[in-house]
Parts: sequence; structure tokens; C-alpha cells
Amino acid sequence: MRIVGDDPDELAPALREGLRRELLVVSGGLGPTHDDRTVELLAAAAGLPLRLDVELEARIERISREFAARSGRPYLDFAPGVRKQATMPEGAIVVGLAGTAPALLLELGSRVAVVLPGPPRELQALWPAATALEPFRRLLERAAPRARRVLRFYGIGESAVARALDAAGGEREGVEATICARDFEIHVDLLVDPGAEQAADELSAAFCAPLAEYLFARSERSIEEIVIEGFGSRGLTLATAESCTGGLVAARLTDVPGSSAVFRGAIVAYANAVKEGELGVPAETLARHGAVSPETALAMARGARARLAADAAVSVTGIAGPGGGSEEKPVGLVNLCASGPDGELAAELRLPGDRETIRRRATVAALHLLARLLSGR
Amino acid sequence: MRIVGDDPDELAPALREGLRRELLVVSGGLGPTHDDRTVELLAAAAGLPLRLDVELEARIERISREFAARSGRPYLDFAPGVRKQATMPEGAIVVGLAGTAPALLLELGSRVAVVLPGPPRELQALWPAATALEPFRRLLERAAPRARRVLRFYGIGESAVARALDAAGGEREGVEATICARDFEIHVDLLVDPGAEQAADELSAAFCAPLAEYLFARSERSIEEIVIEGFGSRGLTLATAESCTGGLVAARLTDVPGSSAVFRGAIVAYANAVKEGELGVPAETLARHGAVSPETALAMARGARARLAADAAVSVTGIAGPGGGSEEKPVGLVNLCASGPDGELAAELRLPGDRETIRRRATVAALHLLARLLSGR
Repeated sequence: MRIVGDDPDELAPALREGLRRELLVVSGGLGPTHDDRTVELLAAAAGLPLRLDVELEARIERISREFAARSGRPYLDFAPGVRKQATMPEGAIVVGLAGTAPALLLELGSRVAVVLPGPPRELQALWPAATALEPFRRLLERAAPRARRVLRFYGIGESAVARALDAAGGEREGVEATICARDFEIHVDLLVDPGAEQAADELSAAFCAPLAEYLFARSERSIEEIVIEGFGSRGLTLATAESCTGGLVAARLTDVPGSSAVFRGAIVAYANAVKEGELGVPAETLARHGAVSPETALAMARGARARLAADAAVSVTGIAGPGGGSEEKPVGLVNLCASGPDGELAAELRLPGDRETIRRRATVAALHLLARLLSGR
Repeated sequence: MRIVGDDPDELAPALREGLRRELLVVSGGLGPTHDDRTVELLAAAAGLPLRLDVELEARIERISREFAARSGRPYLDFAPGVRKQATMPEGAIVVGLAGTAPALLLELGSRVAVVLPGPPRELQALWPAATALEPFRRLLERAAPRARRVLRFYGIGESAVARALDAAGGEREGVEATICARDFEIHVDLLVDPGAEQAADELSAAFCAPLAEYLFARSERSIEEIVIEGFGSRGLTLATAESCTGGLVAARLTDVPGSSAVFRGAIVAYANAVKEGELGVPAETLARHGAVSPETALAMARGARARLAADAAVSVTGIAGPGGGSEEKPVGLVNLCASGPDGELAAELRLPGDRETIRRRATVAALHLLARLLSGR
């Protein structure tokens, strides 16, 4: 994978090198402005002339006119960019449009080049259409793809997972393993060559057995999807009460489509007066134990359940820094509590790292605490 | 910039190629596990033997023992990883530690290679120390860096900004311009060669004059920093009331260190009952105008100010999709309101894109609405 700037002296050699491979996938540099040069330089690298595709121009013009009308700007602003975006190397297949930048495919003998827009949403929308085109499918038929087994752990460190993998015999012929830590989740992927499925099954079974209590997913489903689906399937509603995470737990939960059937709301109680007034944390609890304490976390979770009429709630209160720490309660101290109809779970973390890291890890911890409340793990 | 996997067949040639340049910067692949091979392959590419650095091993051991104790795991789990991480190419300078992975610098004749850990926090912490080392400083003294002028716009499209740049004469000798759209913010950077400062001043002045009302920053300060600092310097406190953004606006505001002096809290009102009960939105307003309406947005913003005792608040209510849209109120419709002591501002957006895009852009719009409330723009 190579990342190059808009400078033609960088981009042109990278494209020439890419065109020597069976498949070149390029993203970005398709915008309407002068500094986006992917199509022009790809055509040059492939030795193809550029042609204005009149039909394509009409399609992009329609979209741009709509956008111009909606934003109250003259279409004239857009016309030169539309013409640029509709100019294609001769013989290119237009894959489709997700914004105003068309994705294209070039077939060059047995080689294929695919050009996709840079914005992730547009790229993701057009990728399936690109891979469905005849030249791309012929290429895929010649390939022998590796299968991928996904294992996701929480509550155990990367080193311990690596030791468990070694103890299970480690990588073997046809089975490659990658281990990656992401905010205290440990993501393990086994990449399996065709024919090595049984070896992968054996490794996976031997490796997972001693780690069963930490294994929370065998798929790429995120912890927020697992939580929303788990509570939803039991007919339970959810809420959050957040201090140091400032809404991040709620934001993750509501990122899941359909979460509105499960998630009722959140109270972000940054000021102590809000913890008292909106979450009903007793002034005495705050005075005696402090805003960052198991007692306050418990009162926050119960308060969120009561105030937001939710069946379960998770609370987070901590010191994200850089200021606000003390010897007794240093930066990184976080108290969490999950409260539901069948019981309550508390956790106290001492997280290393900067403000952003502490907030992100506390958010992940809160989501996993909800998952544990549900699973009884 | 090149991104390669852990496979030695990919990594080794990339390192060999990098070592042919004046400066090679590598990040990642320094972990304790077997699949992290950067140091070993860099030593091979440079033709240097590997040596265990006993003093470094002791430093990493101290950190790992602390971590082991805190997480209740035996140090034995960590020892092999510590030895691996303390093994360095002969002659390497240890830049420092931010976790357990040491950054290192190799001086090879007039060339320099710097190896940094992959986690962004660790990389950022060690980069200044790497650039301060003597071999790196000698390299920098030979370079003629370009200055960078940063211009940030909101409320105008990428194409219109590009046209304004052209109308101002566009790029010129020694001044390169890049234009990049980020969630409706348009980021323009002018890269200025030494000696071209006056040309850059002229371009910048001519280019910005007609766009003055959209220019919100001449620095890389984020909109949330501008908002927190702006309200804070006037002694005003802030709150948010969020539906479709689910806490993202609060999360962005509380990402700013020191925001606790300004930000009081948020109410994430996903369910209508929460909009009524916690924000005081009248049932009649919800029934007559719907949850996504200017009237509900106004009531939410006023409710957040009152309930959270904040001087100002912003509200967001919208349809993020994929479900929930209708012909009259399609997916992407978002109503916002900012309410403060000197007045109120409303906005209605019809955002294209998927759930994540709509939520992110509505979040940015809410932050900019707060900035406008403050500046009176």
C-alpha cells in the first residue's frame, strides 16, 4: 500500500509501478479541483488519451445542479469541475457514482486498474460494483483467497494472548496469525490457506480453550452492536450516565442503526451540580467520597435508570486529565458501574495514557461492562 | 509514504528502499510479539548485528513489572517480550520510551533512520526527542522547509473555494495550494517556499477577502477548541441537548482539555419521553411539529440551558437513518438551535450520506452554530 501526495512527480511513478501488477486499486484524487490528478496521470501512465464522456457529464451535472439549488449557489460554480470529473481515459468502464466523482475500471490486457473516490462512504458504496464487473471477476477467479477466522478478546493483555497462542503450537503451515491490541481489546485473526482448514480448527480450539472467559466475539461485530442487540433481544432498554467520557458511550451505542428501539438517552454530568440535579447523586456522597468514586458511579447508574426510565444503565466517572489529578486520585482513575434488573457490576480502572486514550479506553470498558451484565460472565 | 504488513517479504524490501533516502521514518512493528519484525529486519537491511541492550532491558522490565502487578499477572508472561524489545541494531541510539517499545535512531553515514512505536500517543510523545538528537538536527539544518499557511472555512463548498482561489490568481511560483473538504469544513493550506512569503501574502489576501464570512480559523485549532475558548473567555457556561448525534457534540466539546470549566453537561434525549421529562419539551410541540422540527430543537436548547443551569446550549434533532425517514421528513433532515443570553440561532440541514456521515456532519454543524452565536457572524 502506498500513499502519495498530489504532486505529479510522486503520483506518476507510483501509478506506473502499480500498473505493472495484476491489480491496481487507487483511491482519491478524483475531486473537481485542479490538484486532483489521478485520472489524468493514470491515463498518461497507461498511454491512453483522455476523452470527455458526454453522457457521464450529463449525469454529474444533474447531481451538481441539485446540490447547487439546495445550497443556493449558481451552477456556474460547478461546471468546470463537472467537465473535469467526466473526462476519462479512452476505454475506461464507468463503475458508478456515489457523489460527483465517478469510479472507473481500466482493463489492460490481463491486468486491471480500479480507481475509486477517496471519501470512505463513496469508496465503500462503489467497491461491490467494481468487483462485480467482468474484468474484475475474471481476475478474482484466478486467485486463491485465504479464509479469515476472527477472534476478539477483552480483559486480557496482548502478551498473555501471544503466550497462549505459542502454547497452542503457534502458527503452522497454511495458518498465519496476527495479534493486534485496540483500546484493551485484543484482536486475533487467523489467515487460512485453502486446505489448511483443519489445522486452523485445531489451533483455534487449543488456543481459545484457556481464554474462554475473555473471548467476546468470533466476528467483527463491535462491542456496541453486541450490547444493543443483546439488550434489544431481551426487550430491555438502556441509558448512560457519563462524566469523563462526556457522551462517548452514548455516541458509540447510538452509532448502531436501530439503536433507538433500545437506547433511551444519556445524561452527561460534567458539573457536580448536574450529577446531583439530573442524576440524583446525593450531595453527601459527592462530599464524602468525591465525584470519582465507586459510590458516585453507583448512584449515577441508578439515577440514569430512574430518570430516563431505562431497564439498565452504565455510568462512568473518572479523571481524564491533563489536570484534576491528585496523589490519592491520579489522572487515569475511572470508576464504572452497570446497573440492571438482575444486579449490578462495578469496575475501577487505572488507565495509562493521555486524555484521549483514557476517554476512549473508559468508553470501551463501559461497553464491555454492559456486555458482562448481560452475559453474566 | 508506504504501508506494509508484517510479512518479511514485504517489509524487508521497503526498509531497504527507505534506507537509500536521506531520512527514513518507520512507525510500528515494535511490539513484544513474534509478528513485530521492524527492528530485526532494519538491522538486516543496514547490515548491522543485533545486540541485547542490558540497560534498556532493565528499564523496560521496570515498566512491565509495574504493569504486571497492576493487572495481577505474572511477570513471566512479559519477560520474553521485554528481551525482544531491548534488542537493538549495533550503534543504535535509544530515543526513549513512552510505553514498552523503545524508539531508536540509526545514523548511517549522512543518512538517518528513525524508528517509532505505532500507537499514536507513543509516536507523538517520542517524535520531539527524535528530532532533537544531534544526527537528526544536522539533517534538518541541510533542509529548506516550506512554511505553511492554514485557512479554514465553513458554510461554503469546495468548488466555490477553488473558484475563489483561481479568481485570486491561483498557485504561483513558490506557493502551492491544497484544498480539502472535511465534514463540510474546507481546509486550505498554502505551502510557501523560502523567499515566496510576499507572493503568499498577496494570494492569501486576495483569496480570503470575498470569503471573509466563511473563514473561521487561520490555524489548526479545531472548532471545539474555538468554542470552548470563546465561551470560556467570556465567562459563559455551555450545555448540549442531543437526539440524533447521541452525545457526539458533548464528546467533541469535552475532548478539549480544561473544558470542565465551561461545559456543564448534556442530555441525550433519544426517546421522546426523555425529551419531555428531562428537557421539558412540551408534549404538544412533539405531537404537532414532530421530534425533528425547528420548534422541538428550540425547546430542547432552552430546556438544556434551564435544566443544566448553563448560559448557552445547542440542540440537535434529526433523522440519521437508515430507517425513520418519510417523504416529508427524509433521512438527513436535521434541525439545530443554539440559545444564549444574547439571542438564538436556528439551522435546518438536509444532509446526504449514511448514518455515520449524517451524525458527524450534524455534530460539526452544531459546533459551528455555537461559534456563530458567539461571534455574531
